[in-house]
Amino acid sequence: MKLATIRHAGSTTAALVVGDAFQPLPAGNLSDLLGMPAWKQIVSEAASEHPGLAAVPASDVEILNPVPTPAKVICCGLNYSDHILEMGRDLPAYPTLFAKFADTLTDPDAQIVADESVDLDWEAELAVVVGTTLQNAREDEAAAAIAGYTVANDISMRDWQRRTLQWLQGKAFDRTTPLGPVMVTADEINPEAGLEVICTLNGTEVQRGNTKTLVFSAAKLLSYISTFTILRPGDVVLTGTPGGVGMGMNPPLFLKDGDELITEIPGIGTLRNIVRTRVTADL
Amino acid sequence: MKLATIRHAGSTTAALVVGDAFQPLPAGNLSDLLGMPAWKQIVSEAASEHPGLAAVPASDVEILNPVPTPAKVICCGLNYSDHILEMGRDLPAYPTLFAKFADTLTDPDAQIVADESVDLDWEAELAVVVGTTLQNAREDEAAAAIAGYTVANDISMRDWQRRTLQWLQGKAFDRTTPLGPVMVTADEINPEAGLEVICTLNGTEVQRGNTKTLVFSAAKLLSYISTFTILRPGDVVLTGTPGGVGMGMNPPLFLKDGDELITEIPGIGTLRNIVRTRVTADL
Repeated sequence: MKLATIRHAGSTTAALVVGDAFQPLPAGNLSDLLGMPAWKQIVSEAASEHPGLAAVPASDVEILNPVPTPAKVICCGLNYSDHILEMGRDLPAYPTLFAKFADTLTDPDAQIVADESVDLDWEAELAVVVGTTLQNAREDEAAAAIAGYTVANDISMRDWQRRTLQWLQGKAFDRTTPLGPVMVTADEINPEAGLEVICTLNGTEVQRGNTKTLVFSAAKLLSYISTFTILRPGDVVLTGTPGGVGMGMNPPLFLKDGDELITEIPGIGTLRNIVRTRVTADL
Repeated sequence: MKLATIRHAGSTTAALVVGDAFQPLPAGNLSDLLGMPAWKQIVSEAASEHPGLAAVPASDVEILNPVPTPAKVICCGLNYSDHILEMGRDLPAYPTLFAKFADTLTDPDAQIVADESVDLDWEAELAVVVGTTLQNAREDEAAAAIAGYTVANDISMRDWQRRTLQWLQGKAFDRTTPLGPVMVTADEINPEAGLEVICTLNGTEVQRGNTKTLVFSAAKLLSYISTFTILRPGDVVLTGTPGGVGMGMNPPLFLKDGDELITEIPGIGTLRNIVRTRVTADL
């Protein structure tokens, strides 16, 4: 099943995707829905009892960031072997982890406004949404606790990221990580079997990776993180980006005003974001 | 004024410290109180109208982490010139920032349970609590938005911190950063004029720094952070630790089971924490 957070007729709601329409669910957004212990049952009943009956056509709907209020957004920094090698690093024994905030996230078609950065870069990623509380979880327990998957672009301010040893300030600008458009439930797709992760800049493909080459799978990441901090329903984990980021190019290529960034994982969906920055093509 | 979050007669409340007693305030904790736009007025009225009338004696009270639910906990990593030099680094042009979670925080007298780490280290710190929303704030605006100050110990798992380039996993073990015992309002103390930050291990002083030697003042940190992410009432910023941490010693000294750690900022108060870890003196 595909779940979303939508705005319709002036209000916001969690919704089940039914064909080309959205069936509202009894929660203000998907974060709130996942916070309900019976969320799976609520979704199943909505899907089976009156399928499509109260659905709103896609044309009347604005699709928002599906999970707007995670208490934790934890990201894995170097997780695709090709990206690790392009950054000049060795394959890791442990996942490199850093945090973002709920405020860092934005809608799947949001403009990315970044006037403070001149080295703005893309990072297409698979994002995992937690469905059940996890503490010191084994990998199989972590796998069973995944609510679903969505698409993210961990847009990074490389100039800020490189100011100090810690990446946070280059990774946590408000409203710069688009997420969505939907969360596909974990029973429907399997990243370990392979999902393509594709990023296109102004019509040119710049990244194409496959989640089967992740050094740390979604379940491994959740298990590892749950060793030191509790994960709760609605928390989001970004699994890292494949090769092809701008700073890895020779010469490096960064985003400029008006650039169109398309981030896609077939089977989940597509983010489409226009960049707004004071960096223009003439610079 | 000194504000706290206390447990008394089975319930938790924000409270004003009145001499040796605690006067309950109309909020479940100090985080909730700071979320009320009129929090300063509520505190002023409690302090002036019936001072001490409904106060609970300290002996009947358990003092908790004053701000248990910050949406953001942001820490500055290298901020005292002596600590920076002991870690073998240059004085920084920008603050090194990383995140913790609300779950990382714990009570001022909590046991610190850390069975997963063998290189457990201390970092006595001044913590700043935000009182007004800040976005792209100048330094004077940031200074005016500080609700108050409290004491923290950024207890760090150096083995986990060093596993990768990013420190998060060594800094964000649940319930390992004690905070408190009170928040002193910003009108009563001035870190730029100088506050001693002292850490004592089993009766031996290991750290003594002064906040007037901070490279980035509390207001500078809040102003800088607010450039990339909004800060809201109740958010917490840790300002870094002075020299004298265990990993800087020759040979390095790490915490073992039963160690008593006292963290003190005179004028604010004292944290007293016993360490529980599988590392014993015999190791």
